[in-house]
Amino acid sequence: MTTRIGMMMGDPAGIGAELTARVLAGGTMSAETGVVIVGDPAHLARGQAVAGTNISVEELSGANDVAVETGTVSLLPQALDGAADYPYGESRPEGGRYMLDCFETLLSLYKEKRIDSICFAPLNKHSLKIGGMGTADEGDWLTEKLAYTGHTAELNVIEGLWTSRVTSHVPLRDVAELITVDGIVDAVSVIDGVLKTAGKANPKIMVAGLNPHAGDNGSFGREELDVIGPAVEAAKEQGYNAEGPFSPDTMFLSAKKENYDAIVPMYHDQGQIAMKLMDFEYGVTVLGGLPVPISTPAQGSAFDIAGKGVANPGAMTVAFKIAEQMGGS
Amino acid sequence: MTTRIGMMMGDPAGIGAELTARVLAGGTMSAETGVVIVGDPAHLARGQAVAGTNISVEELSGANDVAVETGTVSLLPQALDGAADYPYGESRPEGGRYMLDCFETLLSLYKEKRIDSICFAPLNKHSLKIGGMGTADEGDWLTEKLAYTGHTAELNVIEGLWTSRVTSHVPLRDVAELITVDGIVDAVSVIDGVLKTAGKANPKIMVAGLNPHAGDNGSFGREELDVIGPAVEAAKEQGYNAEGPFSPDTMFLSAKKENYDAIVPMYHDQGQIAMKLMDFEYGVTVLGGLPVPISTPAQGSAFDIAGKGVANPGAMTVAFKIAEQMGGS
Repeated sequence: MTTRIGMMMGDPAGIGAELTARVLAGGTMSAETGVVIVGDPAHLARGQAVAGTNISVEELSGANDVAVETGTVSLLPQALDGAADYPYGESRPEGGRYMLDCFETLLSLYKEKRIDSICFAPLNKHSLKIGGMGTADEGDWLTEKLAYTGHTAELNVIEGLWTSRVTSHVPLRDVAELITVDGIVDAVSVIDGVLKTAGKANPKIMVAGLNPHAGDNGSFGREELDVIGPAVEAAKEQGYNAEGPFSPDTMFLSAKKENYDAIVPMYHDQGQIAMKLMDFEYGVTVLGGLPVPISTPAQGSAFDIAGKGVANPGAMTVAFKIAEQMGGS
Repeated sequence: MTTRIGMMMGDPAGIGAELTARVLAGGTMSAETGVVIVGDPAHLARGQAVAGTNISVEELSGANDVAVETGTVSLLPQALDGAADYPYGESRPEGGRYMLDCFETLLSLYKEKRIDSICFAPLNKHSLKIGGMGTADEGDWLTEKLAYTGHTAELNVIEGLWTSRVTSHVPLRDVAELITVDGIVDAVSVIDGVLKTAGKANPKIMVAGLNPHAGDNGSFGREELDVIGPAVEAAKEQGYNAEGPFSPDTMFLSAKKENYDAIVPMYHDQGQIAMKLMDFEYGVTVLGGLPVPISTPAQGSAFDIAGKGVANPGAMTVAFKIAEQMGGS
């Protein structure tokens, strides 16, 4: 069985095409994988020129030709006017529109069972917005396009440690009110499901506390006793290998020492402060819960270094490996 | 001029005495420093035996004999019954009382201008409590004993980066209400003062935001616009080299890259998650703002490994160097 990965090269003003070229040329692809890129041939050609690679790519004539074979890279053309000399370093509506078009094509390929997972190079949210994305981010946009109504979450992966937070881009003063037993169990459920898709049999999941030292038994904050503890119990009853609540300031050290697979933080910075310190260059984001597995490097489109051939492909390489694992049959 | 450091060996049930012995035997002490330890001679002797050191220590007969000379280590006896075979690994009231007695003697020595700074080995808060400490922690206790009414703060130091948080052991849900312009300026002022004492001419201080991405210009949280931004302006007007608010999840990376000396986090875990990940083994706590400079390793009394000779003296070594810097004339 071939693992068929659909790829999008990210913002044409950024480092995405060169990263795509480097990853596909660099021996990252496993022997059981095949790739179809959706994008403009000139966009890929420029990426190859910047990266100094020479991948052999079969250009397809239409979606019906997409039948990804092991060990091959093909390209399904999606036009971007002026792709060969598209300006580096700035958001433009046509680049945003182009990325959304590529995404729509990839979702169609998935629905037609022509690909198993999606990996995309760094995009730029502002480009997507001026290109017509009407949602807060690409995760919401993809969820909407898939007409998916289940629970989804952005997962962050660094050094084999996954996180899926209960709350995200909300004011810190609202966090305590927003965490609920159901929300925590949902986050555990999503990360458990994604990790199983990625090949972990019984993911070991750590649930964070909210307060300093996890409240020190109610001394400063009761959410551990009233909400988080009961949520961990509920998750256990549903068969998840979850534990907690853990003291937020030492949980990342414990997770690494005791080989946890995942952490469920209660709020954005509780997870992100640690994840960004741990090894930012190799961070990967997974859009979890959706019917189709989707991964991307956590780094941005890096407009300042685009086209210079100096972008580090480390995170894109890890994102590709995760797309392989999640797309594997 | 001799820098005269007063030392306390920490909980007699823990690793403090062996760490003290290792640091004083290990070539850490600079050529301009002298040390007086306050404690039971048998407590130090056992520490030396565990550490396998043989420091020459002059035993004094009373506080009036304390006249610390460069390059010497002396001991002012403070009795602990049964010190030679005091049980390792458990909190006992007599150990707590002993540590408080040692502290009181050190404060007297400071008031009599016989020492310039204090460095103490890991203690155990529970031992202090059952030994008679009526305050939340030793910082408050020392502040009370000094009858000091100014602003104080616990500072954390790792890899040359100092932090002093605006709020500490409070529920996360209360943090947003507790941060004020005055509180932030006070935190900047304390850390600036301590860093100047430690020899930094014009400390470069980063002030944290509160919300994800520092609120993204009010999109999720207004404290950056309404409180923290104005506090940074007020601090600048008072002559501090402060900047901010910075996005909490990337500020530690920026601080290291751009050589900031200090960060002012808004709440406990915003600072502690990062500090514990960075290099926990070498972390140091400084009690800042007090008339007498006081430092201690951030590690605990490590009851589980006490007396085994395996405790890492790294943090105690850094704490001693900081006590030297802060006590220097």
